[in-house]
Amino acid sequence: MSYSFRNDYSEGAHPAVLQALTDTNREQTVGYGMDPRCAAAADTIRGLCHAPEAAVHFLIGGTQVNFVTIDAFLQSYEAVIAAATGHIAVHETGAVEATGHKVCTVESPDGKLTPAMIESVLAGHNGTEHMVLPRLAYISDTTEIGTVYTKAELTALRRCCDEHGLYLYLDGARLGCALTSLENDLTLPDLAALTDGFTIGGTKNGALFGEALVLPRPLPHYRWHMKQRGAVLAKGRLLGVQFQTLLKDGLYFDLARHANALALRLRDGMAALGYPFPVASPSNQQFPVLPNETVERLQRLGYEFEIDHPVDGDHTCIRLVTSWATPETAVEDFLRDLAGC
Amino acid sequence: MSYSFRNDYSEGAHPAVLQALTDTNREQTVGYGMDPRCAAAADTIRGLCHAPEAAVHFLIGGTQVNFVTIDAFLQSYEAVIAAATGHIAVHETGAVEATGHKVCTVESPDGKLTPAMIESVLAGHNGTEHMVLPRLAYISDTTEIGTVYTKAELTALRRCCDEHGLYLYLDGARLGCALTSLENDLTLPDLAALTDGFTIGGTKNGALFGEALVLPRPLPHYRWHMKQRGAVLAKGRLLGVQFQTLLKDGLYFDLARHANALALRLRDGMAALGYPFPVASPSNQQFPVLPNETVERLQRLGYEFEIDHPVDGDHTCIRLVTSWATPETAVEDFLRDLAGC
Amino acid sequence: MSYSFRNDYSEGAHPAVLQALTDTNREQTVGYGMDPRCAAAADTIRGLCHAPEAAVHFLIGGTQVNFVTIDAFLQSYEAVIAAATGHIAVHETGAVEATGHKVCTVESPDGKLTPAMIESVLAGHNGTEHMVLPRLAYISDTTEIGTVYTKAELTALRRCCDEHGLYLYLDGARLGCALTSLENDLTLPDLAALTDGFTIGGTKNGALFGEALVLPRPLPHYRWHMKQRGAVLAKGRLLGVQFQTLLKDGLYFDLARHANALALRLRDGMAALGYPFPVASPSNQQFPVLPNETVERLQRLGYEFEIDHPVDGDHTCIRLVTSWATPETAVEDFLRDLAGC
Amino acid sequence: MSYSFRNDYSEGAHPAVLQALTDTNREQTVGYGMDPRCAAAADTIRGLCHAPEAAVHFLIGGTQVNFVTIDAFLQSYEAVIAAATGHIAVHETGAVEATGHKVCTVESPDGKLTPAMIESVLAGHNGTEHMVLPRLAYISDTTEIGTVYTKAELTALRRCCDEHGLYLYLDGARLGCALTSLENDLTLPDLAALTDGFTIGGTKNGALFGEALVLPRPLPHYRWHMKQRGAVLAKGRLLGVQFQTLLKDGLYFDLARHANALALRLRDGMAALGYPFPVASPSNQQFPVLPNETVERLQRLGYEFEIDHPVDGDHTCIRLVTSWATPETAVEDFLRDLAGC
Repeated sequence: MSYSFRNDYSEGAHPAVLQALTDTNREQTVGYGMDPRCAAAADTIRGLCHAPEAAVHFLIGGTQVNFVTIDAFLQSYEAVIAAATGHIAVHETGAVEATGHKVCTVESPDGKLTPAMIESVLAGHNGTEHMVLPRLAYISDTTEIGTVYTKAELTALRRCCDEHGLYLYLDGARLGCALTSLENDLTLPDLAALTDGFTIGGTKNGALFGEALVLPRPLPHYRWHMKQRGAVLAKGRLLGVQFQTLLKDGLYFDLARHANALALRLRDGMAALGYPFPVASPSNQQFPVLPNETVERLQRLGYEFEIDHPVDGDHTCIRLVTSWATPETAVEDFLRDLAGC
Repeated sequence: MSYSFRNDYSEGAHPAVLQALTDTNREQTVGYGMDPRCAAAADTIRGLCHAPEAAVHFLIGGTQVNFVTIDAFLQSYEAVIAAATGHIAVHETGAVEATGHKVCTVESPDGKLTPAMIESVLAGHNGTEHMVLPRLAYISDTTEIGTVYTKAELTALRRCCDEHGLYLYLDGARLGCALTSLENDLTLPDLAALTDGFTIGGTKNGALFGEALVLPRPLPHYRWHMKQRGAVLAKGRLLGVQFQTLLKDGLYFDLARHANALALRLRDGMAALGYPFPVASPSNQQFPVLPNETVERLQRLGYEFEIDHPVDGDHTCIRLVTSWATPETAVEDFLRDLAGC
Repeated sequence: MSYSFRNDYSEGAHPAVLQALTDTNREQTVGYGMDPRCAAAADTIRGLCHAPEAAVHFLIGGTQVNFVTIDAFLQSYEAVIAAATGHIAVHETGAVEATGHKVCTVESPDGKLTPAMIESVLAGHNGTEHMVLPRLAYISDTTEIGTVYTKAELTALRRCCDEHGLYLYLDGARLGCALTSLENDLTLPDLAALTDGFTIGGTKNGALFGEALVLPRPLPHYRWHMKQRGAVLAKGRLLGVQFQTLLKDGLYFDLARHANALALRLRDGMAALGYPFPVASPSNQQFPVLPNETVERLQRLGYEFEIDHPVDGDHTCIRLVTSWATPETAVEDFLRDLAGC
Repeated sequence: MSYSFRNDYSEGAHPAVLQALTDTNREQTVGYGMDPRCAAAADTIRGLCHAPEAAVHFLIGGTQVNFVTIDAFLQSYEAVIAAATGHIAVHETGAVEATGHKVCTVESPDGKLTPAMIESVLAGHNGTEHMVLPRLAYISDTTEIGTVYTKAELTALRRCCDEHGLYLYLDGARLGCALTSLENDLTLPDLAALTDGFTIGGTKNGALFGEALVLPRPLPHYRWHMKQRGAVLAKGRLLGVQFQTLLKDGLYFDLARHANALALRLRDGMAALGYPFPVASPSNQQFPVLPNETVERLQRLGYEFEIDHPVDGDHTCIRLVTSWATPETAVEDFLRDLAGC
């Protein structure tokens, strides 16, 4: 009757993933991701992306793949442009700065970066050696507040980046939920065509852990960057096996669809009860505003979730996250309990 | 009839570990290692180490735990002392230097660091601001070439470090094999008493991945260092569950004993066939010297191993590694096939 | 008839400084700032600051002293709070980030940081290992837009920093002009009492180059930080000689008073001609708004200055900077020529 | 009757340099080295080097130009090869490592790097992502122990570097003394043809400070690297003026010849008195071995010099350094006093 909507990595892996890890457990392979399982998973991803020349690397976590990759793209005096809500700007403990690069942030009402925002950052830089050179635009899909990019938006960003000589990197920690969102019209081949790098997040969508990085144009010596930052898994095969399993027969997308569907059920149910959602999220993170006492009652009932921010003295915006593992009953219980609050 | 002696992370996890991951798969916990499973595993480790005040952190891999921890110990102008064969000096792609610290190396015939070696490095530094300040001695047990430290040796190192104001850090990627080696007289409580930090390696001894870091005197804000370097696992519980399982009823040590026993069987069998072992290793890595043609014949038979270095035009030193997963038959087959070469 | 108001380091050194360098030229001293001239200058500064326990270091330039010192104050996961206009946030090519630290910026209408701004930044950080820890407040006096801090303001900042465990660092690249501004009520002893570190800028006030760093509570091993970052001048004595000369009989302050007086003459003259000054600066940088065609006419007449920013399609905000070296005639010529534009 | 042979930067600048600084003191120029004086000095250097396409940058000191330039050449996983006595490996407080790069050292009896030494370092690296990639060979001329490279030696290094894809960087902090040494057959055009970058040291040969970096093939965005590391002098013109003066009519080489001649006079005089010189140095640093009591007597007489290292219980190797500023009488006094010891 209680459930944690705290995040989408509260549980372990989808049973099929665990089964595959069990089935392949005694296989002997070379380490570090140079094994046939990783090769096969990379091939699958290249195929799904229609990007036969792409490099595919498997890293362990989101912060890791973000800072290693951004650092690999940039010279030391080059900087990143990100929305002020961007994960790298807020929740990665300055990991990008720890590799020496400034993150130039710009306010965004919905967590999405636009060409106008990029250009406003560029306008604040004079192109001389006295300032950093913004060189890479960081976006996430879904964003940190659940919104998703459309193909038109991503195409406009690509055009803007091309015009200004910027790389475009997309953090896909929740890419499954983005691509299966009802508002989405992007595909994996679109991402491969429109970005210089993007990740397919496993951690939040059925894997024990793991992010697949797709580089449509391979970065030379990327594996040196990985190794130097501790991002090469000894038993690299574990990542290949997990992604092979998730990407087979569309399981990855089925899991994300489930998460999205339950999130929309939460949203619609709560909206019907009169709770406002200041940001319209079509994906697995929902940000309703509740009276403080309702928040406390839900917590006393055993529901867990993150407090996003206080809205006013009496109201709080919370975050509810669903995942592949969330049972329908948890959502229905929550709505029923909320109605009774 | 063929087998890979390439390393001790060729396979997955011990079945008990996989089973525990399966059993706990649907548990909902908070992320990042703040969960009850990690807390329990940390408690177990504190207990085994007789170190109730110690901090225990779970990281993902060996390079990662080494550079994050060394950097956490040091100020930016401080340096590390390591044997020239030390893993951080050779096989971690300059990860420690990438965090800004020099690694001062000293030749060691058996891979072990001695007080005399430390003092020879210190003698080359004048204590002024024109040179780095060596501040931490890095050792590994087993060493990269299979040797192990005795309690007398570690005690002498501790005394030397105290005398010169150095931290002593022990990389225990193969700690199981060290502590169960026939030449060993060290215990976990000894390590907690004699070092400023040491790791209990899971990756090479039964886990899918994971290194437990024990800090007898906690380092403030160590988790910030972890997070900034991408070393916090989202589903941190996976690490807790694995170490709980491995450390229950001595499984961890049983697995290492198995690896060592098979390695000694390899050593003795090969020595009986007349192959020399220039370095005497009492643990799960063995470094015999073979004629080049024998090496090639073994490879053609399907045996895998690493070439350590050419000895002369006709001979090669190879590395054979056994693990918890190595079947006795693999060793017997290998010896029989070698006898027939 | 033409003059460059581009900056306050267009010329060389005050003649007395050059003379002192000439007079001491053949003195033999030990290098790196360990010489009697530096010792004497440091003593003078400690005396002027009423800070007998302070450490005084001499560095070469402003960016250098900022990043070396900020990095020396901070642990790797700690961050800086600065006004969005702060020199380190804008014009130092990410030098602070290149040492691994995030700079958290906050908008400020007049370039000054306030306790409320600091607290707004802190409010955006949750104190967990998922975010950087803001640990140092960076301010400059004069600010980058010419404003100066009052004693009440600095005292409030100190109190705020104490409350939140922050260091307070003051970039005094233009400290002479700040302390001699008509709006100033701060003294060197106040700065020593209220900050954790501040610089006395020589480069922009009579020296060939050089910034004196005052650390009321010495930072251990600061000279190692300096040396590692290339901030130790071989002939360190040059810095001691220059500061000795500048600080003798108040020359340093006389030079700054001259610069301020001419800047106010420019301001008043231009205001009398009807040109607006959106930011009220009481120091040697003035930011008037002129019609674009007036800007161009002045440039054609040979006047040099920086374009600060376009105000609208027809108007531009320029920066006029005076210094110890600016002749009164240059200002009068400029005003006369402007009146004729 | 006393004199400091401690180093070649004990005094200020050659009088002609001081005069030029005085003559140009009130010139107004743009800052940061973008002025006509720096442009003229760069042109002069390009002319002297027969390298019309070369980039010439002026930095402040030796450690600074070394680490900024080495970092600019390298990707983050790339490393430097240097003699164990190399300045960057010993006396720069890990400045290169502080930018993230490993320095791989190799023993050298005379301080010079050879192709065989480079290849021995390369042989220890396997070219995989598990190890750093050595990418730049660092040499100094004169070396830290006074020896100089011949054209044949430098040509062989160039060939070796080409063969292995390495950059060749020459630290010319004492380049004047190298190029005017009796054993030298290299010219500035040779250096431009044979290296990827070299410095012309001003600090130790007549300037107040300053190193000119010559990049035969310009490095893109080098000035961003400079600025980010605090290596751009505000009044950059000071560097241009100094190098213009030193390079006019061969003054730079005359000063170095003077230093060398006095050093050889010291050497010959001491050798005649029976003191051995284990390393044969043809340049301005000499390393004689003296009985400890003689060392003490000289010190009591007021002579200053550095203790290089103890040779045995009774003897010490000291370093005597001459410069443009050393008077002949100092050398004669020293020899006479030594004879009387």
